[in-house]
Amino acid sequence: MAQKPSIPKGTRDFSPEEVSKREYIVQTIKKQFQHFGFQPIETPSFENSDTLMGKYGEEGDRLIFKILNSGDFLRKVKNDLYTEKDSLKLTPKISEKALRYDLTVPFARYVVQHQNEIDFPFKRYQIQPVWRADRPQKGRFREFFQCDADVVGSNSLWQEVEFVQLYDVVFTQLKLAGVSIKMNNRKILSGFAEVIGESDKLIDFTVALDKLDKIGEEGVTKEMQEKGISAEAIKTIRPIFSLGGNFSDKIASLKEILASSEIGKKGIEELEFVQKAIEKMPLQTANLDLDVTLARGLNYYTGAIFEVAAPPDVKMGSIGGGGRYDDLTGIFGLNNISGIGISFGLDRIYLVLEELDLFPNSAKNNTKVIFINFGQKEALYAMQAVQKLRENGINAELYPDSAKMKKQMNYANKRDIAYVVLAGSKEMENQEFTLKNMKTGKQDNFGFEKMLKVLQ
Amino acid sequence: MAQKPSIPKGTRDFSPEEVSKREYIVQTIKKQFQHFGFQPIETPSFENSDTLMGKYGEEGDRLIFKILNSGDFLRKVKNDLYTEKDSLKLTPKISEKALRYDLTVPFARYVVQHQNEIDFPFKRYQIQPVWRADRPQKGRFREFFQCDADVVGSNSLWQEVEFVQLYDVVFTQLKLAGVSIKMNNRKILSGFAEVIGESDKLIDFTVALDKLDKIGEEGVTKEMQEKGISAEAIKTIRPIFSLGGNFSDKIASLKEILASSEIGKKGIEELEFVQKAIEKMPLQTANLDLDVTLARGLNYYTGAIFEVAAPPDVKMGSIGGGGRYDDLTGIFGLNNISGIGISFGLDRIYLVLEELDLFPNSAKNNTKVIFINFGQKEALYAMQAVQKLRENGINAELYPDSAKMKKQMNYANKRDIAYVVLAGSKEMENQEFTLKNMKTGKQDNFGFEKMLKVLQ
Repeated sequence: MAQKPSIPKGTRDFSPEEVSKREYIVQTIKKQFQHFGFQPIETPSFENSDTLMGKYGEEGDRLIFKILNSGDFLRKVKNDLYTEKDSLKLTPKISEKALRYDLTVPFARYVVQHQNEIDFPFKRYQIQPVWRADRPQKGRFREFFQCDADVVGSNSLWQEVEFVQLYDVVFTQLKLAGVSIKMNNRKILSGFAEVIGESDKLIDFTVALDKLDKIGEEGVTKEMQEKGISAEAIKTIRPIFSLGGNFSDKIASLKEILASSEIGKKGIEELEFVQKAIEKMPLQTANLDLDVTLARGLNYYTGAIFEVAAPPDVKMGSIGGGGRYDDLTGIFGLNNISGIGISFGLDRIYLVLEELDLFPNSAKNNTKVIFINFGQKEALYAMQAVQKLRENGINAELYPDSAKMKKQMNYANKRDIAYVVLAGSKEMENQEFTLKNMKTGKQDNFGFEKMLKVLQ
Repeated sequence: MAQKPSIPKGTRDFSPEEVSKREYIVQTIKKQFQHFGFQPIETPSFENSDTLMGKYGEEGDRLIFKILNSGDFLRKVKNDLYTEKDSLKLTPKISEKALRYDLTVPFARYVVQHQNEIDFPFKRYQIQPVWRADRPQKGRFREFFQCDADVVGSNSLWQEVEFVQLYDVVFTQLKLAGVSIKMNNRKILSGFAEVIGESDKLIDFTVALDKLDKIGEEGVTKEMQEKGISAEAIKTIRPIFSLGGNFSDKIASLKEILASSEIGKKGIEELEFVQKAIEKMPLQTANLDLDVTLARGLNYYTGAIFEVAAPPDVKMGSIGGGGRYDDLTGIFGLNNISGIGISFGLDRIYLVLEELDLFPNSAKNNTKVIFINFGQKEALYAMQAVQKLRENGINAELYPDSAKMKKQMNYANKRDIAYVVLAGSKEMENQEFTLKNMKTGKQDNFGFEKMLKVLQ
């Protein structure tokens, strides 16, 4: 036990400063969720395995953390199966529970399980950790936090409008001006595939298109050809590779390109609804953009698709995303419940705010004042003041031991505490406190009320 | 997939109302933690198994949830061992990680791992879920939340004083008047065992004594005899079964009983320090009591022992507890770091507040006002007002669909939303809003500013 302890790879300890800064982000988001009428729910960290397995594809199943059954978990395993020594076959026999992989499937499970207690449309938010047995790398963790808001039970396009507004307000509150809220619509993508006569290759088409900003027009064309999309079809669709102008200009171009596709025109109509509403209620600091290459988990979304990019001067992937899905709860047997949801990328938002130095000092939530401990009698005098300061909402401490003055001052310094109070026998006599501002070095003698005022 | 989904036994979904109420308790506690200078940390949900195993006794090891290794976890298991089909032996070969069982051991691990970044004394708080494979029963869950505050790196008895104050302030803030903060000291218990000449039977003695309020003096006497404590010894110690009076009276009695025990006298001195300090700084609503039968995880604590009982009119076990431990980090190789900590029993506090109806309405964090949706044009008019209300800190919604009036009103009713706004073409013409108070049924016509004022 003498070796220095460590934590599993891909997991993190959060220091006081980190917790406080994360809390600042979470509280900012939560407050807006509530202003928008979303209500919080929480679900258990682990679910029954059959709730999760098969919902994220084969790769997802592999990345789900399974929990070993308790007790003599081998007792009930049949010998024939056991002797095969096959991990995949043995797993369901020795593990019945698994850690949450995302918040979406547990939410769908929640909605179905509690459908009789829920008033639809149901607007919920949920901020909890999720776990994935992914290979850890920079910015990718095995335990990380998701921060989701969803509405289920309404097809109204006002939801799309509200999610755009929600992103705008949250990032404005976080002082992160200039984020780009990119929108697309699954129906637009279906329309593209339709007008080039390749509806059966929709996914290949979209996966390639999604890579436009990474591999360029040439790369996308090549990949589409490899997937069997005809040169003629690609030629027809070429205009979408270089759609220019603002949201309205792009809409105008799309109206031409998709003139012959009913589904495509429906997609345009939906996007236009959002754009017109936002025109009437302008965003504070974010930009709304139309990005026809945007796909994100295509098979999942059926309407609007969102992605939020950090301001252009910050190199960072998306810091949020989401979209509309038509039948999420269908996997648990409750059909025809349309939903739409977005999420905030907590870890990345943290990195962006850090890089741009946007965390306010108040996010640290540190102790404001510490009293030096000069011994028993003085400590009691100090504690009485400390108690009153706390009652007035000041984070205050007494150094617990009457250690050497230098040690106590060093401690205050290292912990970055703004004020130190020195109260020895002389101060006690005068019912005063010597308050030292650690930044300026200035010292003043105050009665309690005056000191409280300075600290407030 | 058609069967109704469920969650693993011993786990819970939290509804919006439950999350909000829990949040109210947690925020109240957190605020006081911060006033007292505690800083938040968070540790990963799972730790390396060897960090946890062997720290909670054999029973504890059994109750720790183990996580199955990812991938082909059987590949590296040697055939001889595998064919034994022994769950206990196989576990460490197929599982390297385990879910946190409490917050104390991960905290000790954190302190040792980050000792060079930490300024001691280190006051930390931590509020996170923990998991135990216990048999679920009323009030006992497999996933539950712990809420701990600890100080490590100081022997100062001012910490004991502060924890008493902290309990008092938190329960006062929660409007839960009349809780009883019971204190004892491990040194008092050692003193008892010493004066009766049974120091080697300290644990048996204490385990029996701890049951006094359950099985009475007769029961305790019987259990002590069964454990081999002599009748004469029990006779000597009998006075502690019926220590009466207040804290000071009990201290006076203990001074007689423990007159011949050095360690006993040290324990009295420590308790007296706390009592005298609290006398000078009276508690707001809690009572400080001395309970010499209090033991709680005896082997763990070395000095003060705390336990908080709900007010006498509520039937509930302890709602908090803690104590001083001298060498918590020793298990990870860092010796001589004294610590003291307490925890709040979140689930039980919730039940007590519920029973006494002490949750304020504001704890619900509900939507304050919903706008009826009369159609496209009216909805835009409404949304513009909704946006301005949100900017002013009001939780506001638009019903997303222009459904039948009755359906929308029912929805507002069921969700217990305080106000409904009706804004049709007539209101739009006059730039007004009809605001209906759902409690009184009263309706008024207002301009936006006036409406905002009412809602604030």
